[in-house]
Amino acid sequence: MRRTLYTDEHEAFRSAFRTFLDREAVPNVEKWEQAGTVDRAFITSAAKSGFLGFEFDAEYGGLGIADFRYNAVMTEEVVASGMAGDTFSMQNDIIVPYLRDLTDDDQKARWLPKFTSGDCVTALGMTEPGAGSDLASIRTTARRDGDDLVIDGTKTFITSGATCDMAIVLVRTGERDGRGTSFVVVEAGTPGFERGRPMHKIGRKAQDTAELVFTNCRVPVSNIIDEPGRGFGSAVANLPRERLSIAVAAVASAAHALTLALNHVRDRVAFGAPLSDLQSVRMAIADMHTDIQVLQHYVDRCVLALDSGELTADDAAGAKYKATELQWDVVDRCLQLFGGYGYMEEYPIARIWRDARIQRIYGGANEVMKDLVGRAVVAR
Amino acid sequence: MRRTLYTDEHEAFRSAFRTFLDREAVPNVEKWEQAGTVDRAFITSAAKSGFLGFEFDAEYGGLGIADFRYNAVMTEEVVASGMAGDTFSMQNDIIVPYLRDLTDDDQKARWLPKFTSGDCVTALGMTEPGAGSDLASIRTTARRDGDDLVIDGTKTFITSGATCDMAIVLVRTGERDGRGTSFVVVEAGTPGFERGRPMHKIGRKAQDTAELVFTNCRVPVSNIIDEPGRGFGSAVANLPRERLSIAVAAVASAAHALTLALNHVRDRVAFGAPLSDLQSVRMAIADMHTDIQVLQHYVDRCVLALDSGELTADDAAGAKYKATELQWDVVDRCLQLFGGYGYMEEYPIARIWRDARIQRIYGGANEVMKDLVGRAVVAR
Amino acid sequence: MRRTLYTDEHEAFRSAFRTFLDREAVPNVEKWEQAGTVDRAFITSAAKSGFLGFEFDAEYGGLGIADFRYNAVMTEEVVASGMAGDTFSMQNDIIVPYLRDLTDDDQKARWLPKFTSGDCVTALGMTEPGAGSDLASIRTTARRDGDDLVIDGTKTFITSGATCDMAIVLVRTGERDGRGTSFVVVEAGTPGFERGRPMHKIGRKAQDTAELVFTNCRVPVSNIIDEPGRGFGSAVANLPRERLSIAVAAVASAAHALTLALNHVRDRVAFGAPLSDLQSVRMAIADMHTDIQVLQHYVDRCVLALDSGELTADDAAGAKYKATELQWDVVDRCLQLFGGYGYMEEYPIARIWRDARIQRIYGGANEVMKDLVGRAVVAR
Amino acid sequence: MRRTLYTDEHEAFRSAFRTFLDREAVPNVEKWEQAGTVDRAFITSAAKSGFLGFEFDAEYGGLGIADFRYNAVMTEEVVASGMAGDTFSMQNDIIVPYLRDLTDDDQKARWLPKFTSGDCVTALGMTEPGAGSDLASIRTTARRDGDDLVIDGTKTFITSGATCDMAIVLVRTGERDGRGTSFVVVEAGTPGFERGRPMHKIGRKAQDTAELVFTNCRVPVSNIIDEPGRGFGSAVANLPRERLSIAVAAVASAAHALTLALNHVRDRVAFGAPLSDLQSVRMAIADMHTDIQVLQHYVDRCVLALDSGELTADDAAGAKYKATELQWDVVDRCLQLFGGYGYMEEYPIARIWRDARIQRIYGGANEVMKDLVGRAVVAR
Repeated sequence: MRRTLYTDEHEAFRSAFRTFLDREAVPNVEKWEQAGTVDRAFITSAAKSGFLGFEFDAEYGGLGIADFRYNAVMTEEVVASGMAGDTFSMQNDIIVPYLRDLTDDDQKARWLPKFTSGDCVTALGMTEPGAGSDLASIRTTARRDGDDLVIDGTKTFITSGATCDMAIVLVRTGERDGRGTSFVVVEAGTPGFERGRPMHKIGRKAQDTAELVFTNCRVPVSNIIDEPGRGFGSAVANLPRERLSIAVAAVASAAHALTLALNHVRDRVAFGAPLSDLQSVRMAIADMHTDIQVLQHYVDRCVLALDSGELTADDAAGAKYKATELQWDVVDRCLQLFGGYGYMEEYPIARIWRDARIQRIYGGANEVMKDLVGRAVVAR
Repeated sequence: MRRTLYTDEHEAFRSAFRTFLDREAVPNVEKWEQAGTVDRAFITSAAKSGFLGFEFDAEYGGLGIADFRYNAVMTEEVVASGMAGDTFSMQNDIIVPYLRDLTDDDQKARWLPKFTSGDCVTALGMTEPGAGSDLASIRTTARRDGDDLVIDGTKTFITSGATCDMAIVLVRTGERDGRGTSFVVVEAGTPGFERGRPMHKIGRKAQDTAELVFTNCRVPVSNIIDEPGRGFGSAVANLPRERLSIAVAAVASAAHALTLALNHVRDRVAFGAPLSDLQSVRMAIADMHTDIQVLQHYVDRCVLALDSGELTADDAAGAKYKATELQWDVVDRCLQLFGGYGYMEEYPIARIWRDARIQRIYGGANEVMKDLVGRAVVAR
Repeated sequence: MRRTLYTDEHEAFRSAFRTFLDREAVPNVEKWEQAGTVDRAFITSAAKSGFLGFEFDAEYGGLGIADFRYNAVMTEEVVASGMAGDTFSMQNDIIVPYLRDLTDDDQKARWLPKFTSGDCVTALGMTEPGAGSDLASIRTTARRDGDDLVIDGTKTFITSGATCDMAIVLVRTGERDGRGTSFVVVEAGTPGFERGRPMHKIGRKAQDTAELVFTNCRVPVSNIIDEPGRGFGSAVANLPRERLSIAVAAVASAAHALTLALNHVRDRVAFGAPLSDLQSVRMAIADMHTDIQVLQHYVDRCVLALDSGELTADDAAGAKYKATELQWDVVDRCLQLFGGYGYMEEYPIARIWRDARIQRIYGGANEVMKDLVGRAVVAR
Repeated sequence: MRRTLYTDEHEAFRSAFRTFLDREAVPNVEKWEQAGTVDRAFITSAAKSGFLGFEFDAEYGGLGIADFRYNAVMTEEVVASGMAGDTFSMQNDIIVPYLRDLTDDDQKARWLPKFTSGDCVTALGMTEPGAGSDLASIRTTARRDGDDLVIDGTKTFITSGATCDMAIVLVRTGERDGRGTSFVVVEAGTPGFERGRPMHKIGRKAQDTAELVFTNCRVPVSNIIDEPGRGFGSAVANLPRERLSIAVAAVASAAHALTLALNHVRDRVAFGAPLSDLQSVRMAIADMHTDIQVLQHYVDRCVLALDSGELTADDAAGAKYKATELQWDVVDRCLQLFGGYGYMEEYPIARIWRDARIQRIYGGANEVMKDLVGRAVVAR
């Protein structure tokens, strides 16, 4: 079924971005996988080509384009390139709204130009070792001391945590009956701010993930973005966009895996005929193809809803968990179609598979998503 | 997620049709269920209100409206009314294209006015006792004898088979290497055409289903519609629309069941709290709600594709099997939420459940659909 | 995989019971289905042959055989006979332990001889309209008035409720801080005890199910069985046996459905070959066959555990929900293999299917079973 | 449910083997994981303790114990130890029958003493790059040249392929109309026999897997074991034991993962309470626990059947695919219960998960197993 989400402009942009990835990412995928992180040179180059922070106004180095379809195009192309780094989805989909919507003009002037030039890879510090999807129980504190905040605590599972230039950190600041939380920017190099070593993950090996440790870490009060005490609310407001970003990647990953599997079953001969001649293989293909079609159209609809301000928290949560469950189902079945080869790291399907597993967990574990959707529907 | 399929005109039509059903169908649901068929008076009344054959030109009593969204509105409202008769989907969605696209002007003049006045409830005779979803193996023959055709054979599982005024029958006429098939119209009352007694089905009890038996049944050659020998091709061409009709009903049925279940779990108290307070119930609701949303948007997209001539055989087959599998999953889980009450015929959910089971079988068994989709995808 | 549960004695008993059913049940299945209940003459005949209450001592007309393998044999044969009445499982598996373990000698003398002669079909009144699987919230009360109890309340979904000669009823008697419950016997004919009309169920149509209504219904205090106030505990103690009985029936029903389906797919030709030549059919058969084998051995193990006093509440609950979920999965897939015929009441698979649906609900809804097992495992 | 498979002797053996693993394997798990293979010293030590080839007669260094329950005990303990090497299952479960049943006395004298002393780690070379589960299409040839065989071809996915001392290789020898196959022993060091470098697998990283390449490799004809031309038949005869070995490991792995997950959900607090207080978690635990119980008893039954010579090819195939599907389902759900931690290699659950994935593929892909079972059942 033909998609109707994109215009010719989006497709032209896709073509340009694909060319960029073919030239600058694809030849380095293996190297980044070994290094545990994407090269900084790649990020700088992407920034120069306008692929970072394009939603920001031109005065800050952006293009003033607020159309999530461009973000979706980029996600689809990153997935198809085989590059397992989260630079674009993390920076453009998740970080940009924080820096655009919560900051004042002074803050914008401090950070946005560096962001769009690729000199300010930003991490988002929310999850804590004891808290997981339960943001309300975070313990990192920021104590007011004159014009400073003194931060103590630990964040974990932080994307780009080992290589970021700055972090936007959710801390407990104590407003509103002592329970208030705020987002504070902490720049790399600030004394008391330690970026941990990359964690050894099952997959997503070209993307560093690390702890952020704050020990008596002092930043000026002017590093608080958003209205003090409202951090939790801001986090919640940004979650639908983050979850939709994950859903877009999930459908793209499923479609990519199916393409690989289709090529394999058409070519691979067993018991005297191509695998695709087996009815069980054909039906598995049918199932995956149809599921992807169906969910693709829904996620596309959600992208339009995000742009028109209509995407609700529960619709985004629903899209996130359905898309990542679909992704998992498809990717796992596709690996199986490759037989023993699917278990070998040399085969792209093996990497897609181990990379995919985290999608059901981050951005809000799928069980938490289901509960959220259920509460919303029951309460209607 | 807001649907974008319908315009205000469609919603106004929905409102009018709902009023009609509330007045003429809802009070009779129980009676029809017992009688095993819908009253002819109801059909005549529907025809008078313009609800039958509205796609035909005005000269034949139609409204000249070829917009499948109206058909979809009707299906949704029939489902919501609790009326388990297939009059509208059968006549408007399935029969109309045969009578509109395959007939010549003389044939149109003979049958269309009676169709739009409710005097020509039409059955479609394709399936045979030995053939099921395998149309290519039908054995009913129509032997040419002068200007007549002499038909012999048996059709089974025929919707409105016991009460139809005429039947459009797929017969083997022998053109094209002896394997050619054609569609022939046989009117009730023709000697040798016997409409069987209603079969006892598990559900869909307000809709008669029966065998059609042809014994030396003689009709004029002019009763052949379509080009002789091309019957199988015509059948295949009409299948996407039939399957989409089933998909529309499936999603509507799932949504209807969920509405009933939601009311139940909000009201019903067990272990000291409403059922909806149980996490397992909430998550089941979330799953069903999200699945319905997702598939609704896809089926809506298919409706637009049908109207624009873009709906492929495999997309329709995919929509049919996914929608009816979803319907089944939802309806079965909803019944479970009702506990013992769900097993009692007095409860609408019980009837929705037993009525739903046939959807995975007719219009092409879902396994056949999967195989068809798989072949199409692999061959690309 | 060869079963090891039964000895030659059990198989000889099976043979005798099968002969009995072939003669006295099979020819009447259709009649009972229409009548909504099994003939009393059949029950009397079964009793004469020793098939009712054989666990009771000889002085009460029993055989003194306490070996649940005989009960399992009977359940398997009843399922294979196509008789959808619950006489044997209800009386022998569920009622017998109440009358054997909770009664004193006087009570035994009053009721057991009639039970073993077939003159005392007994119902068990636990579920109430507002309570479902939540026994703790029952509202039927038995107020002490001299040497009498005065019972008021309503029980629902009661097997044999319309035709029973007596009922064992769980009532609130108020001991133990006012929350105590007891089991009381109420004989048919007692003023104020009304047996409702059979409810219209989706399936199990040869078995009457009805409400029991108690209005100022007076019985002697000596009709209390068990120690007053301990009713809830006695109910809980008997549940594993009831649930195992359901599990035995579930596996037997799945195996029976698979046998029917196997015969069908071997015989039925579609697309030029038997259905069993299709890989998807073969794999469905493999799945069902293997699942049945696996669960059969587990349920057999549970039967031995029941006889040795080792069957825990959570093991029985696990067996019940797994076996009935398996049954449902198998029966539903088998119906699908029959295509349109599977939807016709004339076909045994259609009846097996609609009959099977209640198994996931009664004896404790499967969701309640899962919760129970989960609590037990977590608490270990 | 209490297992009845093992006697006190087996449990004593378990205790001894566990002590051995705790001392010699557990401290080295991390090292072996990095090295990509288990230390040879460990294998020698195991051999000294009698853990290798104990089925062989005492004259060859064995214990003359042919009781697969001992093999099952070892598999369970290896799984529980966290050691992801296949030494024991590969050598004792898979290789032993080839060396015991197919060899003549001279061959036994040549190889068995070295096998039981740990000096002859043996690989089994069946799978080829182009053949997967389709053994009938292997292309490796052994051409007769005087008293020698000259072998040419490539085997892939060979367990211990990089470190083996000898390999038993399935080759095409040409008897029986040119299609005959035989098993030939090739010792490491033989010119023309090249053991490949370890392949990079997603998991099972402590076990080397490699290609075996034969180029004009010359061995004496006396290295053929079994009757020439019957290789395929011998392979088929040994498959049930191999598949049962996989099934035993699968259930043990599922049980191990559940134990880890149970400890986690009891300890981990989210939203103010242990995870185990969430109904969805409890029900997931119930499902996994019950499924494991059920399958454990079936696999135990299969172990007895193997020992009594009753285990059929289709029962073994059924056990293999059901057990490995269960393992996968359980291991994947358990990982999810760990949230983000489950994706970190430091956590045992992460390794169990990536190690488990190959089980559905090797020993005959599960789809091939299903097809095999289906054919057997349909043909009955």
